[in-house]
Amino acid sequence: MPVNETHDPGLRSWVESANEPQTDFPIQNLPFCQFDLPQLDHGPVGVVIGDRLLRLDVLVAAGVFGEIGDTLKEAAVEHMLDGIMIRPFSDVMPRLRSRLCELLRADNPLLRDNTSLRSSALISLDEAKFLRPSLIPNYTDFYASIHHARTVGSMFRPDNPLLPNYKHIPIGYHGRASSIVASGTDIRRPRGQQSPPEDPAAERRATQTPGFGPSKMLDYELEVGFFVGPGNELGRPIPIGEAESHIFGLCLVNDWSARDIQKWEYQPLGPFLAKSFATTISPFIVTMEALEPFRVPAFRRPEGDPRPLPYLWSDADQARGAIDLTLEVWLQSEQMRARGLSPVLLSKSNSFKDLYWTPAQLLTHHASNGCNLQPGDLLASGTVSGPGATERGCLLELTWDGTGEGGKPRPRKPLQLPSGETRTFLADGDEVIFKGYCERDGFRRIGFGECRGRVLPASAE
Amino acid sequence: MPVNETHDPGLRSWVESANEPQTDFPIQNLPFCQFDLPQLDHGPVGVVIGDRLLRLDVLVAAGVFGEIGDTLKEAAVEHMLDGIMIRPFSDVMPRLRSRLCELLRADNPLLRDNTSLRSSALISLDEAKFLRPSLIPNYTDFYASIHHARTVGSMFRPDNPLLPNYKHIPIGYHGRASSIVASGTDIRRPRGQQSPPEDPAAERRATQTPGFGPSKMLDYELEVGFFVGPGNELGRPIPIGEAESHIFGLCLVNDWSARDIQKWEYQPLGPFLAKSFATTISPFIVTMEALEPFRVPAFRRPEGDPRPLPYLWSDADQARGAIDLTLEVWLQSEQMRARGLSPVLLSKSNSFKDLYWTPAQLLTHHASNGCNLQPGDLLASGTVSGPGATERGCLLELTWDGTGEGGKPRPRKPLQLPSGETRTFLADGDEVIFKGYCERDGFRRIGFGECRGRVLPASAE
Repeated sequence: MPVNETHDPGLRSWVESANEPQTDFPIQNLPFCQFDLPQLDHGPVGVVIGDRLLRLDVLVAAGVFGEIGDTLKEAAVEHMLDGIMIRPFSDVMPRLRSRLCELLRADNPLLRDNTSLRSSALISLDEAKFLRPSLIPNYTDFYASIHHARTVGSMFRPDNPLLPNYKHIPIGYHGRASSIVASGTDIRRPRGQQSPPEDPAAERRATQTPGFGPSKMLDYELEVGFFVGPGNELGRPIPIGEAESHIFGLCLVNDWSARDIQKWEYQPLGPFLAKSFATTISPFIVTMEALEPFRVPAFRRPEGDPRPLPYLWSDADQARGAIDLTLEVWLQSEQMRARGLSPVLLSKSNSFKDLYWTPAQLLTHHASNGCNLQPGDLLASGTVSGPGATERGCLLELTWDGTGEGGKPRPRKPLQLPSGETRTFLADGDEVIFKGYCERDGFRRIGFGECRGRVLPASAE
Repeated sequence: MPVNETHDPGLRSWVESANEPQTDFPIQNLPFCQFDLPQLDHGPVGVVIGDRLLRLDVLVAAGVFGEIGDTLKEAAVEHMLDGIMIRPFSDVMPRLRSRLCELLRADNPLLRDNTSLRSSALISLDEAKFLRPSLIPNYTDFYASIHHARTVGSMFRPDNPLLPNYKHIPIGYHGRASSIVASGTDIRRPRGQQSPPEDPAAERRATQTPGFGPSKMLDYELEVGFFVGPGNELGRPIPIGEAESHIFGLCLVNDWSARDIQKWEYQPLGPFLAKSFATTISPFIVTMEALEPFRVPAFRRPEGDPRPLPYLWSDADQARGAIDLTLEVWLQSEQMRARGLSPVLLSKSNSFKDLYWTPAQLLTHHASNGCNLQPGDLLASGTVSGPGATERGCLLELTWDGTGEGGKPRPRKPLQLPSGETRTFLADGDEVIFKGYCERDGFRRIGFGECRGRVLPASAE
């Protein structure tokens, strides 16, 4: 779908809040979500516009969609957004977007002037409890930010931060799907076996009994996720040229991590309980259609870096496979909240476009062995970090002060909060808030909403 | 549930094939499965008896279950076996087992002499196409055989085969749920990036371009899986004393592995595409009730090994947390099949009972960080290998010949097949067959059926 009239910055909606310049949700965005209402059995699909939520189920019942209404009706039988994803939405989505845009345009009276339909179809964002936007049958997490991989690698291997495979193969692992929660859900600090103190002699570690208790190194990870559309049959790879027709849209992801648990458990099979206690996602899926004006060339690899293997290479993907998206991390401690202090910005970066692999490459790689991707699967980027000290997407990196003499790590450098508190890792009561948005001259700002979660103390033993 | 009249070896069924001494499925077993029939929309739950399949849906409709019939009817609304698992089955299951046992006893005329009901409720095993026995929302694979961990470790780290964490923490990782298939499904050889040749200099590896193509080191992994019952809420661990009330039953698992892909991709986040192309499971869930007579003490750790941390320790689990189960791996190549040669036994072991961690410990560890286990989740043991050369549960180990001078690996020692062929890893057309059974004097043999899969050539590029 090329840039078209649905991206026109002059387009205004009769939902006035959608016309405010700083809204995340102008008529040019229209992200999808699943939500619950007290009076409903199962959550319908919503589309966000300004500070309102448009109920697709009500609109479908009112027959405003014509031909695609039948597709939407079929899709509604079970979980509706999954039902849309399972269909070849590259066909349905542009028409659905056009139609929604038309219905919400300032000059279209159909819904605007139908008080009864409008009042049942359009509800306040505050009324809804947001759910995971799909059933998320499977969750995969990648490691696509080379800045993140290099910084973290330098903590464990000062002389050899990047492993030999990194520039050849997108590194990823299967995450835990069951513990993915929507923004706003409280996060219980995990208990677990904890690594011995930093940098012990290997001999000492081998005989030491590890501790078990609440994690002392709880961290967030700033990531971007994308939802899989139709997916593939088991045994049938997805060629790179078709990859984007399987990407429904994007959301923000906080892949909460317990670093002390991770450090102790992760060898040789990778992260497990250090991550599986919770992953928070923003509840709105910003569609690829809405992101169209913000497509940019894939990361330009430095001279000397290997060219991606043919199965991961397409000229079109190289030309516009990345997305120019700004990401922010904010934190508000319990003390800050109590004293009325606003959340503080911990990091801000524009590095999602500089991932070492594009979303299409990650998806094609994932299916290259024949693994069947399913509608509603979530694939996440891994921590998105930029090269600068204030662009790092997790506390593990932000409070890292590099290595000193003999490659030994220096003590961590705590962050100062406006309340006078300091943080090396997260404390109970801390709320972490991610924001994401696309901006470009000549286009409306497209926002992702928030990905928010507050840390609760560990459960009693 | 203690050993009771349902385990009585003298008990005979009017289904004559169930009384044959070598059957996997005597009246004392009664494993559950989901299957498809051409005339049905969705697969009903079946119970295997001899060479027959008893349809629970038909029996429920006929009202033979009394009080628990209501529970079964509720459970049948969606996917029935998942519906049973989600309920507190420690209450339902013993009653269901008793009732099924009663209905199938040689001296009970109710079903035996009701020709009409019997002919609709009891079908031939051959008629059914077996499905995954649950929806398997999540799949986790452990690494609980210390013999396997030690042998594989010695390939990569001859001086330090076991990592320091191994004896303290059950090592596991999230597997891919979507690509789990039922026994009998053909397996497409995966393509992927392949590791450079064995034991290259690290410098060489860093600059070398990896290959991409069909895996040359395709392997099976002999594992045992267990299905989760009710599960826990996010944030609420499952104490070790309650762990077994969350284990519904067991099956055989073949966690197919592409070793060349694995070797290249697995650092630092663990196995990914090397495993996610397919996992085969036997379709019958052998219940914990049926396995009761075969419970044995947990593996007795050698002097000097650490005692499990308190959250993983229960006297009851130590006393009878393991299961005495014999496992076999058979192989039949295409040539063998063409020449009428029977499958050949590759390995046989009784080492499942000697896993370093019991199923209860694995489950409790998994939920110890608050991770929510869901009904129908599959947890697998990891490759089950014994200490002996013919007890190894994968070709990676079976054809390994140890290390020679300077810690360098010796060439692999191919297996000889009756057809005159040799195998280091699997060839196209090879069929791998796992069998599992419990035997004990004074009890009927309880079998697991087969876990079978044939290797198809890689797809065209």
